[in-house]
Amino acid sequence: MTDTSNTSEGHPTFSVVGRSMPQLDAVAKATGGAKYTADLKIPGMLYAKVLRSPLPHARILKIDIGEAERLPGVKAVICHKNVPRVAYNSYYREPIDEERLPADEYIFDEKVRYVGDKVAALAATSLDIAEEALELIQVEYEELPFVLDPLEALKPDAPRIHEVENNLVREVKWDVGNIEEGFAEADYIFENTYRTQMQQHVPLEPHCCIAEFDINGELHIISSTQGTFNVRVLLGKILNMPLSKIRVTRPHIGGAFGGKNDLFDEILCALLAMKAKRPVRLVNTREEEFSSTRVRHCHIIDLKYGVKKDGTLVARQMKAILNTGAYTAAGGKVTLTTGHRWIMLYRTPHVRYEGKCIYCNTPVASAMRGFGTPQQSFATESMIDEIAEKLGIDPVEIRLKNHRRLGDFDPISKITLGSVGIPECLKKGAEAMGWTKKRKVEKGKGRYRRGVGVALGTHNTGVKPFVNELSSAFIKVNEDGSINLLTGVVDLGQGSDTVLAQIAAEVLGVSVEDISVVDPGDTGSTPYDMGTHSSRQTYLGGMAVKMAAEEAKAQLLDEAAKRLETRPEDLEMKDRKIFVKGSPSTSISLADVAVGLIHGQVTHQVMGRGSFSPVTNAPPFEIHFAEVEVDTVTGAVKVIKFVAAHDLGKVINPLLSEGQVHGGVHMGIGYAFWEGLQIDPKTGHYLNPNLIDYKVASAVDMPPIDIILVESHEPTGPYGAKGLGEPAMVPTAAAIANAIYDAIGIRFRQLPITRQKVLEALRKQKA
Amino acid sequence: MTDTSNTSEGHPTFSVVGRSMPQLDAVAKATGGAKYTADLKIPGMLYAKVLRSPLPHARILKIDIGEAERLPGVKAVICHKNVPRVAYNSYYREPIDEERLPADEYIFDEKVRYVGDKVAALAATSLDIAEEALELIQVEYEELPFVLDPLEALKPDAPRIHEVENNLVREVKWDVGNIEEGFAEADYIFENTYRTQMQQHVPLEPHCCIAEFDINGELHIISSTQGTFNVRVLLGKILNMPLSKIRVTRPHIGGAFGGKNDLFDEILCALLAMKAKRPVRLVNTREEEFSSTRVRHCHIIDLKYGVKKDGTLVARQMKAILNTGAYTAAGGKVTLTTGHRWIMLYRTPHVRYEGKCIYCNTPVASAMRGFGTPQQSFATESMIDEIAEKLGIDPVEIRLKNHRRLGDFDPISKITLGSVGIPECLKKGAEAMGWTKKRKVEKGKGRYRRGVGVALGTHNTGVKPFVNELSSAFIKVNEDGSINLLTGVVDLGQGSDTVLAQIAAEVLGVSVEDISVVDPGDTGSTPYDMGTHSSRQTYLGGMAVKMAAEEAKAQLLDEAAKRLETRPEDLEMKDRKIFVKGSPSTSISLADVAVGLIHGQVTHQVMGRGSFSPVTNAPPFEIHFAEVEVDTVTGAVKVIKFVAAHDLGKVINPLLSEGQVHGGVHMGIGYAFWEGLQIDPKTGHYLNPNLIDYKVASAVDMPPIDIILVESHEPTGPYGAKGLGEPAMVPTAAAIANAIYDAIGIRFRQLPITRQKVLEALRKQKA
Repeated sequence: MTDTSNTSEGHPTFSVVGRSMPQLDAVAKATGGAKYTADLKIPGMLYAKVLRSPLPHARILKIDIGEAERLPGVKAVICHKNVPRVAYNSYYREPIDEERLPADEYIFDEKVRYVGDKVAALAATSLDIAEEALELIQVEYEELPFVLDPLEALKPDAPRIHEVENNLVREVKWDVGNIEEGFAEADYIFENTYRTQMQQHVPLEPHCCIAEFDINGELHIISSTQGTFNVRVLLGKILNMPLSKIRVTRPHIGGAFGGKNDLFDEILCALLAMKAKRPVRLVNTREEEFSSTRVRHCHIIDLKYGVKKDGTLVARQMKAILNTGAYTAAGGKVTLTTGHRWIMLYRTPHVRYEGKCIYCNTPVASAMRGFGTPQQSFATESMIDEIAEKLGIDPVEIRLKNHRRLGDFDPISKITLGSVGIPECLKKGAEAMGWTKKRKVEKGKGRYRRGVGVALGTHNTGVKPFVNELSSAFIKVNEDGSINLLTGVVDLGQGSDTVLAQIAAEVLGVSVEDISVVDPGDTGSTPYDMGTHSSRQTYLGGMAVKMAAEEAKAQLLDEAAKRLETRPEDLEMKDRKIFVKGSPSTSISLADVAVGLIHGQVTHQVMGRGSFSPVTNAPPFEIHFAEVEVDTVTGAVKVIKFVAAHDLGKVINPLLSEGQVHGGVHMGIGYAFWEGLQIDPKTGHYLNPNLIDYKVASAVDMPPIDIILVESHEPTGPYGAKGLGEPAMVPTAAAIANAIYDAIGIRFRQLPITRQKVLEALRKQKA
Repeated sequence: MTDTSNTSEGHPTFSVVGRSMPQLDAVAKATGGAKYTADLKIPGMLYAKVLRSPLPHARILKIDIGEAERLPGVKAVICHKNVPRVAYNSYYREPIDEERLPADEYIFDEKVRYVGDKVAALAATSLDIAEEALELIQVEYEELPFVLDPLEALKPDAPRIHEVENNLVREVKWDVGNIEEGFAEADYIFENTYRTQMQQHVPLEPHCCIAEFDINGELHIISSTQGTFNVRVLLGKILNMPLSKIRVTRPHIGGAFGGKNDLFDEILCALLAMKAKRPVRLVNTREEEFSSTRVRHCHIIDLKYGVKKDGTLVARQMKAILNTGAYTAAGGKVTLTTGHRWIMLYRTPHVRYEGKCIYCNTPVASAMRGFGTPQQSFATESMIDEIAEKLGIDPVEIRLKNHRRLGDFDPISKITLGSVGIPECLKKGAEAMGWTKKRKVEKGKGRYRRGVGVALGTHNTGVKPFVNELSSAFIKVNEDGSINLLTGVVDLGQGSDTVLAQIAAEVLGVSVEDISVVDPGDTGSTPYDMGTHSSRQTYLGGMAVKMAAEEAKAQLLDEAAKRLETRPEDLEMKDRKIFVKGSPSTSISLADVAVGLIHGQVTHQVMGRGSFSPVTNAPPFEIHFAEVEVDTVTGAVKVIKFVAAHDLGKVINPLLSEGQVHGGVHMGIGYAFWEGLQIDPKTGHYLNPNLIDYKVASAVDMPPIDIILVESHEPTGPYGAKGLGEPAMVPTAAAIANAIYDAIGIRFRQLPITRQKVLEALRKQKA
């Protein structure tokens, strides 16, 4: 049901853009031929293991690595005593933007701050030896009081995790209008508190990396990372090496979802490789994935909304507490974006946001799909429904009344909205769900009760203005007219390579098969890209590729114009030909021009460059409709139908766009019902750090999904495109919570909405 | 004794250009850490062997590969019966220039044309199995009459090696002026015949390559090749694949000297990998290096010179017969260059050149250091001395009288000479040798007799106009101001990476350490380069790098101008700073500008491109002076002093320039005295295809060498540079032959001048 027509009046017709095609590496991945980091073996490679803290908060009084070092086969052991003490922030790419994030991480520190924190690392000739050696490292800890709850952590007498008052990493306060006036103007005031849990990314491929110093002292890193250039700049800073001497390569990547955005243990691998003078590989166990990589911030969100009788929002206030875990990582930024996306979505004259980012002795929270938005979306889109119900307004109507319009000014990021497809999304989505009819149906009193819910969402494309942005691309045309595309964009599995090839093919009038994305990309040969995050790559990477292709095209047209004795501006490129506009028979093949340029009398390598730094964050919009069926006997809730309507500006590849939506809804369903890392309050240990006890949605949990792709044409994007990856999961949980309310009249304000919680609530309701 | 001052009046002062520094990979190579192709192991890799013809000329009546295929461990066997029959020329990069070379090679053919020709190839899980399997291939040959001598091959009843009349591959005839008039005007006519032998390149690292098809069907080749793009275009043609789907990588290369210029058995590796669906590696044995790679053309040169009494050349005629072996390869081009360099070196109003390139049933002759020039240099510089002696003119004087001058027009390549350093070379060289004094010394009659000789030479820089030319480069500036340089130039061991880094560093005002040449280069990520041959890389590759660096510099200056509130043209870059000309205190660091560009408010990846296609071949000039001591008892000749004066336009790196000269003289000494592949006239088999029986010069054979580097400033070259690599061996043998004549009064007109030949000649002289 995708709406990708591009031939309607006033729209140009495209050859490649807008066409569904599988990912370029689909066969490689489907057949197992694609190589991931853990598939690679470098001659002489050692196997690394990390000793991780068994305590949530402790000082290391003594550490003895001697016995481990002496175990035959062990080639290097590092701990805080034999590595430099350099402070860094694993998310923060110094020197980036005006606003610095706390550099509170060290390679190793004398303190450990959560269960799973790094204590030591070693490299040995086999994994068995490495594991055996880990047990030979003797550590004497002084246990310190710990705190797992951000509200507790804020108290004056709470354990101090870093040298920061009240464990407060960052406080953000924004006021738009005058919130007190707003509440005074309101007919109704609504106040509620919502809570979300600690979700983990659960990529199929765990974090892993290989480090090797070559004979010239250059450092080569192969890593399952979202940002090769981010790894490079952080390693450069910590190791004090010029960036040109560090080369970070990414092979195929088996999912990331934000969890591979920060610098990971590449630094440990590099130091072990330096010490052992051999290549070193480190692969996380699944348990380490849960404990020692990254999680989603769990939020406590207090909302206070003032509305007019007709449903017009006049005042919105959010006070959000974010648990960023033991280190800041992206916490400071997530505190910003939590508020920003919320303010941005609805028109409201008076708004106040207060966000507080707090240290706790829990795993490090950083970037995860949505970057603070799914949390607030659950809260605020539940709140909108609570208001709508009170006022007797249809949930779709109240959203239609208040949402941002084209041309609205976003007071926080100071941008004017250039594309807003919300009305079309709401209209088409409601139709597809059969909304009006299903809402009117009297909810039964039987065992199985159905309901429908909606939630509106937004996110952003790229991180402007919270971080500066840059993507770049380089294109060269070969002597047979085939094309190599070099991009620093990291394809995490979402298919960005394919989409970028489509964009290049469209500009150059060739087929995607004529474009080879030079793979695997590495920081030595590709131009700079800030990494794959913030739903940015079709937009930013795509625009850089489009610019590079256009620069290459201009050179080809210049040459063709000489041959065809015309002017470049009178020429067009299509089907591997360059022809005079309106006279397709007067043409020359791309191959002829290319070979002429490389091997002709006047030789010239066609090279096109693109560097794109946007002025906006081009917000995408999305509406999710969920229909659920609650089993009132077991408490189980099943999503039986789902409609996802997405305004992504322009659909470059419908198949891959739908894939993104499927993945997002899947992750949103897990977020709604099951996911969440549980911590024993007595020990700080994790109760479910494995895929038996931590349930993610599986195929049988998935409803049929109607996907509606709305093309609002973002004027700053390539062919009008903007982001999709993160939006795909932003409103899912809220839509489900609202549908559950519709089904059984119970409002859940805390995620996940587990079977136990539903049963308990039904029992209370009955009583 | 190098003359590299660049501070003399009127010359700019450089920071990096003109400075000696070791190769960037010197430590890697000296410590054994550098990885060559044969050091690489790809998981699952098979080992290839080639079945080679035991006969110089035969038809394959039957070939049975079944038994070999059935041997356990054998994964693929190919022969002419199961591969496509595609004709190609291993030297010729279709589609290149206007003039096609015969495509007379096949992957395998039904005929074999020399001992060592390809019959079949196979890949197995071990080298032992591969060797065993070779013996299981049964071939039934029909022996054909064969011919080893080009004069015999030209006869009408000679065996026909290809479908070509008289085995004549190519005939080149050039006339300048009117040769008959010239001879009529002459006071004296000189006629002589000279012969040269079949030299082999003898690179330390034999030819080897690895081929692998990835899961997407893209072909990856790792090869010890001089031209990654040449391999790519030929494989593309033979396999009918788009060039973007073929990626050719070159690791460190252990010497090439022209012998790795042609497509080698990469095609066999690729086909075996395709058939076996596994990576395949092929490494030549030393014997295969001699028999089955490439050799230098052996020439038979008839000269007829007409001169005035005062030594003025009025008419020169050369008739050259070139044995190109069983296939053309570069033969057609060498026939051109043999004549061209000869015509170019001296002013002469009337010149005739007739070159004939002939097939024989001998190893394939193609490119080798000098590309036809050392052969004719031996002949013509011997001839000049014979004339000088007859006319009683000093050999230096006769050359000074006749050599080309600045601004002279070369009638063959249609270029005007932009830099000629011959007089300075002759003057400084003669001084360094003590020429005048040593020539006057009465030659003794004792056992040891000394003499001095001189020879003038030229070559060309790049192959214009005989092939079109292109080098290109790409530079990106990292956010710390460090720089990545991408070039398709292949560093064969001569140090081009270092020289290119110096050129980039000079333009950008940084040190060489700030530049990382992205290594190993491959055709996917580097822009096009025509390969390392024709002494072209400092000139062509260097110019492309200079252009790329200048484009990057312009972007940096633009940004710096904004920050310093001035105009870009008022700025200079030096010592990693950008400052206002004449006011070095008003400056900004390169790192600040770079980080500002990548992470600032207006972000931008600095990317510079260079594409250089010269209009000239910028001839370098060289004079070698040799002093020899002949042991009249043993016939042994020892070079006891050597002076090499080279006009290379501009010295970028004196140390590496001297290294080139050392290597060239070394190769020239081997050429003069020992080298030459010997063929049994009865069987066509090789008598010395190994390093015991084929002697190359060793350290104890080397004289001290005075190197004089003359900077004539080539206006079309980077900082005035032109070529050096090939010139370094061009006149060596002639200078030695002339010195031997000076010592003992015996003229040798055939190379090599072995101890036996000297003894025999001394005996004849005595008699």
